[in-house]
Amino acid sequence: MGAASFSLNARDGKARCGVISTPRGDIRTPAFMPVGTAATVKGMLPENVRATGADVLLGNTYHLMLRPGAERVAQLGGLHKFMNWQRPILTDSGGFQVMSLASLRKLTEKGVTFRSHIDGMKYDLTPERSMEIQRLLGSDIVMAFDECPALPADRTRLNESMQLSMRWAKRSREAFGDRPGHMLFGIQQGGLEQDLREESAKALTEIGFDGYAVGGLAVGEGQEAMFGCLDFAPDQLPEDKPRYLMGVGKPADIVGAVARGIDMMDCVLPSRSGRTGQAWTRRGQVNLRNARHADDPRPLDEHCSCPCCQSYSRAYLHHVTRSKEMIAGTLLTWHNLHYYQELMAGMRAAISEGRFASFQTDFEAEFGSGDIELL
Amino acid sequence: MGAASFSLNARDGKARCGVISTPRGDIRTPAFMPVGTAATVKGMLPENVRATGADVLLGNTYHLMLRPGAERVAQLGGLHKFMNWQRPILTDSGGFQVMSLASLRKLTEKGVTFRSHIDGMKYDLTPERSMEIQRLLGSDIVMAFDECPALPADRTRLNESMQLSMRWAKRSREAFGDRPGHMLFGIQQGGLEQDLREESAKALTEIGFDGYAVGGLAVGEGQEAMFGCLDFAPDQLPEDKPRYLMGVGKPADIVGAVARGIDMMDCVLPSRSGRTGQAWTRRGQVNLRNARHADDPRPLDEHCSCPCCQSYSRAYLHHVTRSKEMIAGTLLTWHNLHYYQELMAGMRAAISEGRFASFQTDFEAEFGSGDIELL
Ligand SMILES: [Zn+2]
Ligand SMILES: [Zn+2]
Repeated sequence: MGAASFSLNARDGKARCGVISTPRGDIRTPAFMPVGTAATVKGMLPENVRATGADVLLGNTYHLMLRPGAERVAQLGGLHKFMNWQRPILTDSGGFQVMSLASLRKLTEKGVTFRSHIDGMKYDLTPERSMEIQRLLGSDIVMAFDECPALPADRTRLNESMQLSMRWAKRSREAFGDRPGHMLFGIQQGGLEQDLREESAKALTEIGFDGYAVGGLAVGEGQEAMFGCLDFAPDQLPEDKPRYLMGVGKPADIVGAVARGIDMMDCVLPSRSGRTGQAWTRRGQVNLRNARHADDPRPLDEHCSCPCCQSYSRAYLHHVTRSKEMIAGTLLTWHNLHYYQELMAGMRAAISEGRFASFQTDFEAEFGSGDIELL
Repeated sequence: MGAASFSLNARDGKARCGVISTPRGDIRTPAFMPVGTAATVKGMLPENVRATGADVLLGNTYHLMLRPGAERVAQLGGLHKFMNWQRPILTDSGGFQVMSLASLRKLTEKGVTFRSHIDGMKYDLTPERSMEIQRLLGSDIVMAFDECPALPADRTRLNESMQLSMRWAKRSREAFGDRPGHMLFGIQQGGLEQDLREESAKALTEIGFDGYAVGGLAVGEGQEAMFGCLDFAPDQLPEDKPRYLMGVGKPADIVGAVARGIDMMDCVLPSRSGRTGQAWTRRGQVNLRNARHADDPRPLDEHCSCPCCQSYSRAYLHHVTRSKEMIAGTLLTWHNLHYYQELMAGMRAAISEGRFASFQTDFEAEFGSGDIELL
């Protein structure tokens, strides 16, 4: 298997455009990664996710270790084959979701024990086991095992948690070993504290990773505080490696993060929104449940080339959303993922052509202009 | 708009093979019609339903008149455009589903009044209104409005109901008028009583329809009783018109009905089964929820060319079924509809080649042979 690498092709202000090359294909950055929690991007077939322009999916270690189980997936030929997605997969470490979903969690220096939210069975998760699970799944981009405190948290808690995450980062690096063609990303912690973030970045850089995530954001602190942290956090990380902002976000969060030097993001929002009748368009959020759409023969976005906008009216989307038909979730998820990928492609082009600032201004103006007028 | 017509191309015993030609495309018979209740075949995109080999969909007048409403669909350009299905659509008359789904039903000579099961609103449905709704929807094959008693029912009730349905058939015919390119089907009633069926067939033939349905079966009487009735009922109908058995059925019901001279069928079974983890294969029914599939790397049916069998293991289907992921319903519905259409294509070829009897014997032997052995 060949090596995995990252090359930066253009910069515009702090915004960067590049490519992560892996044996399973290239990832164009800035990249948005749809979330395939339990070995499926909910509501979509994988070939259709690819058709939206996605280069990489995110899989969740926590969900997959519980069901169907990492050893089982390995026995079946790995996650790519299992879920019929042959392009790159990034897996998280499981740490964040243990903290948000599992019950009876117990955190020690060694790792965390918890009970499954599905059947109550007891599990251990350590840096070493997380690396093993991600290897069994066949992940192309592996995340170090960390602890992520909810915000707000006091400085003492943030510091202790960050220090623990750095010790776990070192153990993750050692357990990952040397795996050509696969990448291991470290995760910066430290909450909103600049000096803790700096200390975390130094510790990670010293260990040495193939990429670096800004962790511990998008956990309830709000966009202003998040952007405040992103004004310095990415700059603390190595310039020649990809920078990944975990769990972000709304379109405006994504554009603002790219403006601050972020290369990769993931979020359940486009698919989760799609399943609840919410669409994201160039002109903001549209609620298809609203009765204003019941007789509207127009597509969601007349300029969108996705199958939802090409073949269905707002009236139809309203009808199937109200009727709770599966096609509602499928069509709106498809549109939302398509919109997100178009947004990423637009940013990549703007950065390459040195016009990111005007792209951002135009994006904000159009996004804030509101949905089309009633007929 | 050109005319709609039916031509018989081959017979083998009582089994028939032909084509219903409509301005929206041909329907190869024997035909299986997937059900698109509320303007969607649940879990599927219409282009994928077509890819399984479906020539025609069934839409439900009862559901569509309540939501989104027939006048609204007409205003939006008709059901074909609304649901993105440009090929033929057959709509039922609404009568059967009013009786099974609506509340506070009141039946008179004029028609039926009822309250919507969705919001309790009061509606009237008469032969004239049913014809109007089906015209507003843009249905290619319109069903006469009838009453369908549950079985078992006593002869007096069956006779009165049949007589009422014949009077409604006449009113349906008059209200339908002359609509080139569209067909109106009459519905034979009379329960399991041969003489009542004969009387019904004569009344319908005298009125004159473009096709004839065998109604009032598959309502709880069981396969043996249904086949008993099908041994004579289709023979009572005009030979030169298509014969439609409503709401049937399991694969063995379908093969048995074709053997008895039926040309068209519809059923929610393949899609409903798919949404509950049930697959239909050449070797019978398979329950993907069963733990025996958890580690099975084999496809559902190694000889099936559907996307589900081409790209996913039983282990994956088990996982997504247990995890209640939308893709489970989509993949299994796709396979089931594909299997049903392959069965129809197999019967059409066998009838054309004069080997339907051996097709039926082989079908029954293989279908009864049970699922593949555990690894
Ligand atoms: Zn779209
Ligand atoms: Zn199949």
